[in-house]
Amino acid sequence: MTLRRVSPDTEAHLIQIIERLSRKGTLKRSRVVLSIGDDAAAFRAKKGFLTLVSTDAMVEGIHFDLSYFSPEDLGWKALAVNLSDVAAMGGSPRYVTTSIALPGNKTSDWVRKFYRGMLELASKVQVRLIGGDTCRSSQGIFLDLTIIGEVKPSEMLTRNGARPGDSLFVTGELGGSAMGLEILRDHSQFARRHPEVGRRHLRPSPRNRIGRFLASHKLATALLDISDGLSTDLHHLCEQSGVGAVIDAAKIPVCRVPEDWSRRLAATPLNYALNGGEDYELLFTVSPRIRSKIPRSIGNVFIREIGWITREANECRILRQGRSRKLSPGGFDHFAVPPHVPA
Amino acid sequence: MTLRRVSPDTEAHLIQIIERLSRKGTLKRSRVVLSIGDDAAAFRAKKGFLTLVSTDAMVEGIHFDLSYFSPEDLGWKALAVNLSDVAAMGGSPRYVTTSIALPGNKTSDWVRKFYRGMLELASKVQVRLIGGDTCRSSQGIFLDLTIIGEVKPSEMLTRNGARPGDSLFVTGELGGSAMGLEILRDHSQFARRHPEVGRRHLRPSPRNRIGRFLASHKLATALLDISDGLSTDLHHLCEQSGVGAVIDAAKIPVCRVPEDWSRRLAATPLNYALNGGEDYELLFTVSPRIRSKIPRSIGNVFIREIGWITREANECRILRQGRSRKLSPGGFDHFAVPPHVPA
Repeated sequence: MTLRRVSPDTEAHLIQIIERLSRKGTLKRSRVVLSIGDDAAAFRAKKGFLTLVSTDAMVEGIHFDLSYFSPEDLGWKALAVNLSDVAAMGGSPRYVTTSIALPGNKTSDWVRKFYRGMLELASKVQVRLIGGDTCRSSQGIFLDLTIIGEVKPSEMLTRNGARPGDSLFVTGELGGSAMGLEILRDHSQFARRHPEVGRRHLRPSPRNRIGRFLASHKLATALLDISDGLSTDLHHLCEQSGVGAVIDAAKIPVCRVPEDWSRRLAATPLNYALNGGEDYELLFTVSPRIRSKIPRSIGNVFIREIGWITREANECRILRQGRSRKLSPGGFDHFAVPPHVPA
Repeated sequence: MTLRRVSPDTEAHLIQIIERLSRKGTLKRSRVVLSIGDDAAAFRAKKGFLTLVSTDAMVEGIHFDLSYFSPEDLGWKALAVNLSDVAAMGGSPRYVTTSIALPGNKTSDWVRKFYRGMLELASKVQVRLIGGDTCRSSQGIFLDLTIIGEVKPSEMLTRNGARPGDSLFVTGELGGSAMGLEILRDHSQFARRHPEVGRRHLRPSPRNRIGRFLASHKLATALLDISDGLSTDLHHLCEQSGVGAVIDAAKIPVCRVPEDWSRRLAATPLNYALNGGEDYELLFTVSPRIRSKIPRSIGNVFIREIGWITREANECRILRQGRSRKLSPGGFDHFAVPPHVPA
């Protein structure tokens, strides 16, 4: 691997560009023994830590569309979704490898912009690009990043530690990504006049700082990130922990948008918050005796208590206007239906 | 990550299949703390070892065509090309993650067959599948695997250690993959009657045992795998080491094929050996004082001395019929031209 298989005229040039960019985007690299340019990258794992590995792909026409994604935004987001997986383990992200398949009309200029966006985020979280593969695709762009992180064994947070009676918390606001996506797709002229509309969809902020806070203070019993939508990811948490959950609709931090956006949307903000997906906020459970230790915010990101864990395995319910109803997983499903419309 | 984003009806089923298959394919897993099913996989790195990471993608219509690739063969090959990168570092492969984007007409049966082929090879080399991402693609199959391996720092072999006067060695036979591919593509009826034709292309054997032998006995000064073709990869070795090389055409282990195959081919066997690519043999350099320590074969794989390293930076030459000529990199280039025709 490591950035071969590019056309001869641009190969050396591209490697130079990426190496130069990647050096900018990092502060610590003493444990990287070998980076871009050989058959594999090599690093020294931190003593006493576990190595975390996660892979997330983004496919043109399924996860994104170039009519509203700039190469810089795409680079940012491809890394962000992978960083979020490390945040969801309570770990610290360290290294990333990229695999990119591009159709013939994408030039080295496009690649440079993609990496610029990715490395802008990488430098914020001190993650180093250590390798990758670039090749041609016959149709469409395919991006696959692998993130490598670290966590102390005693601090790692999984999906399977939630216990009946635990409180359920969520970071930030939900639904903003899906609402933004709908406006980007269906109201492109409006989106061009209001570039802030798409920001949550195009440039999500992974919650690595909050993930580390929860892990290092041993505050959470289970943790995952909301990539498929609250209703779906709550089911994932319950399945893995063998529990159920009740959430209170009134407490869900629904992303608020101005009236001129919301009247262009097909569903209510609560629907996007429950089923929209791609918010990359964190969902976690906390033992009742320490729930008061959860701060109301970290950085500028609010943390809200939205419900509790029950004994009823795999049963998720939502309280709304005084009634309790079954909550079905209705989140974003990249495999089933390309255009995701919240129910 | 880790195998979410599949349609709800098959998700649980698919994860079960893959988990069950992956358990079969491994003997050692004491250092894997967390595998398929959470946001990331987690493992404990071996004390005193470096962690190796490499990523290689395979794209339908560029790297493969389903008219001659079965899902089982594709699973085998996707892992083989990644294993080869670890072999090329002198390391031992340990874990793999998979990222697969599939068009809507590919069922869970296809996925099961793909994993069966991959895990058949994984079990031979005791590599464990620890995670992955499955999603839909709008057109064509994209596969991206990330392999994680280990190597002692003192044993790691890179591309940049070759010195003038070193002997140049190559494992196995060259050109068989490209010759097989041409017959699979252009003479499909013949290929169907002779299934052994395509074997080197469809199911390459990565040389991990030889890579480890060279590393653990500290026999090589530089090592890489031949994925792009001998002429191209020899240039990679020379560029990274700042040296030149001379190879003797008569000593190149050209893959021999029966007359009824070779007369169907567009070029001579030597052309395929030099420029064909995808053989996944190893190319390495050895200090002259210990070159006699290189065995003639390891397992059933021959090792041949084909030339030597010179001082002339980036200058590769080939001796043929008493004359020395410049050797240009003419190997397989996945980015530049989809159908690769040896020059």
